[in-house]
Amino acid sequence: MTNERQELTMGRLNKIVASIYDQLNDGEIPAMNLPLRSKNNIEFDPRHNVWKYGDMQTNRNCKTVKGAMMMLRTLHTIDFIDSMIKGNRSSTLREMYYISEGWGYGKFGSQDESNMLAEDLEIVSNCMREDFKLRPEEDGARVIGDITITATNRKGVKQTMNCRDDVPDTGYGIPFNVEKDKVAIKPGTAKFIVAVETGGMFDRLVENGFDEKHNALLVHLKGQPARSTRRFIKRLNEELRLPVTVFTDGDPWSFRIFASVAYGAIKTAHISDYLATPTAQFIGITASDILNYKLPTDKLSDQDVSALKSELSDPRFKDQFWVSEIEAMLGMKKKAEQQALAKHGLDFVTDNYLPEKLTDLGIL
Amino acid sequence: MTNERQELTMGRLNKIVASIYDQLNDGEIPAMNLPLRSKNNIEFDPRHNVWKYGDMQTNRNCKTVKGAMMMLRTLHTIDFIDSMIKGNRSSTLREMYYISEGWGYGKFGSQDESNMLAEDLEIVSNCMREDFKLRPEEDGARVIGDITITATNRKGVKQTMNCRDDVPDTGYGIPFNVEKDKVAIKPGTAKFIVAVETGGMFDRLVENGFDEKHNALLVHLKGQPARSTRRFIKRLNEELRLPVTVFTDGDPWSFRIFASVAYGAIKTAHISDYLATPTAQFIGITASDILNYKLPTDKLSDQDVSALKSELSDPRFKDQFWVSEIEAMLGMKKKAEQQALAKHGLDFVTDNYLPEKLTDLGIL
Repeated sequence: MTNERQELTMGRLNKIVASIYDQLNDGEIPAMNLPLRSKNNIEFDPRHNVWKYGDMQTNRNCKTVKGAMMMLRTLHTIDFIDSMIKGNRSSTLREMYYISEGWGYGKFGSQDESNMLAEDLEIVSNCMREDFKLRPEEDGARVIGDITITATNRKGVKQTMNCRDDVPDTGYGIPFNVEKDKVAIKPGTAKFIVAVETGGMFDRLVENGFDEKHNALLVHLKGQPARSTRRFIKRLNEELRLPVTVFTDGDPWSFRIFASVAYGAIKTAHISDYLATPTAQFIGITASDILNYKLPTDKLSDQDVSALKSELSDPRFKDQFWVSEIEAMLGMKKKAEQQALAKHGLDFVTDNYLPEKLTDLGIL
Repeated sequence: MTNERQELTMGRLNKIVASIYDQLNDGEIPAMNLPLRSKNNIEFDPRHNVWKYGDMQTNRNCKTVKGAMMMLRTLHTIDFIDSMIKGNRSSTLREMYYISEGWGYGKFGSQDESNMLAEDLEIVSNCMREDFKLRPEEDGARVIGDITITATNRKGVKQTMNCRDDVPDTGYGIPFNVEKDKVAIKPGTAKFIVAVETGGMFDRLVENGFDEKHNALLVHLKGQPARSTRRFIKRLNEELRLPVTVFTDGDPWSFRIFASVAYGAIKTAHISDYLATPTAQFIGITASDILNYKLPTDKLSDQDVSALKSELSDPRFKDQFWVSEIEAMLGMKKKAEQQALAKHGLDFVTDNYLPEKLTDLGIL
């Protein structure tokens, strides 16, 4: 019961195993090449506006006991993934770490190690962790608005739900794997996406009917968004051509949430093409908003200040807009939450704030 | 567009306001009485097995500027709640805090203050925060299994969904208000509840079809459960007579998750009758399980040790089972996660662990 994408994944993983087998067969010490996963080999690609790996390679081989153990873990892991694909199963990254307790010498020392290996295999095979049937602990987004999703459920049954009409007010919970073989998306009247950082604000927009009034599709990011959330947004942007806006708090950590949606993250540089939506636009709270809307604020902490300073040298924040907003925030030494807009009443965000921002961007 | 419950809530809040008005009218300095909300006035009620307030009272009056400000905030808050009930709106606790920025002298100094006032009003009015249309930031549980929920959505439309057939694999998202005027629950084939601490384990039970095989209703607690989750479990237990089991990690914090489901928490002692399910049974990881199933463990931290020690003097953990398990854990100095069961394969939890525990309890 495998589909095309699963065949492809298994084929690529088998190629890795075959190469090790062949090397052993030829009397060689087995080795595999990987892009070097260090900061100096990750570059911001200004043409595509995302993070990418450079050309540096590292060679992992079995010349040391440590290297041989690593190779053993790699083979065990591929075997485990293979069994999950064939059995139509999946596991959390945490479960995979615990599963390895049964692998004897192949056992992982920590979950960091097993997580990292899953990413290594993504890079070498050019497949995704979701193809390997590995899930994170965190869940994906909730979404509300007029699009229709057809997802294959655990029983292999296709289930079609409209995310406006067929869901409770808590929305549709996005599954961990939103690849095309699992999830099909059909357009409705939704014209653009508002990705919202906090649950409180997501619920506010839902209660105020912002989605219906403006044909918006609301996505709850839940803070730093899960991969499936970013991938889902990317697919909506590409396939349904919906412009993406990101509505966050006004502080350095929220700026990074925007950046990870728009430009990707260093940790997932090898799959920026899948996850990042470079045309995403920021409609979160800025230093200017704090002044213009006289928002209640908190003082920047020392960590906030150093996070803002490091953003000034981050290529994702190099344009005029970000440089001036970050400098303004450093100057006023204050930050504000998106829910601070409630100072002006529960409707201010949907009657004033968002319409103004979205009109400025030409979306409304 | 108000219903009976809303009338009741407004009636009780208006009584508070009327009493203050009358006192002012009579030339008295207005005051209100509240149960004393300190640890010495909270008792574990051994007959009902939940936390309750004692008889001590505190008197809040306007003899000081501070006291008068508090009274002003109370009146502003009641006014805000009244407008939400009438307008069929709701707000997060955080939004209420920010809303108060527009109240001049009545403004809250911190969110702790506004949260506390919401609880005070619950106590004085004998209504619930949900009746006041105040929501927390955190969401409620996800649930999967054969029961049918009819909930009134934001448009006032009743929406009926079966939590087995009409939901994606991520389950049905419980709304913040699960009172009977908003949410009706109809039984199906589900025979008992397994409330699960982590998302990873919830997804494991879903993938393994544990709900369908054993007619179980799976509820994701998301760590320390939200009020709506506890209330929802309580209603399932009372109205559908479903026995409740709680499946957590094996560490002191998880024991407290169980205790808050079963016996309530000090913070919500005034609504223990609404939230606590004293017949809930623990099927999480114990010290004995760590030994019997040879589970991978982590060392207890200093915080873990002192949490366990304080549980030994907590009346909720006073029975033989808990005393011996807590002492055993302190003795072995180790804890284990529920996902550690994956050491024995992805099916061990559903083929062995849970059936054994549930058979011991007479549920399977």
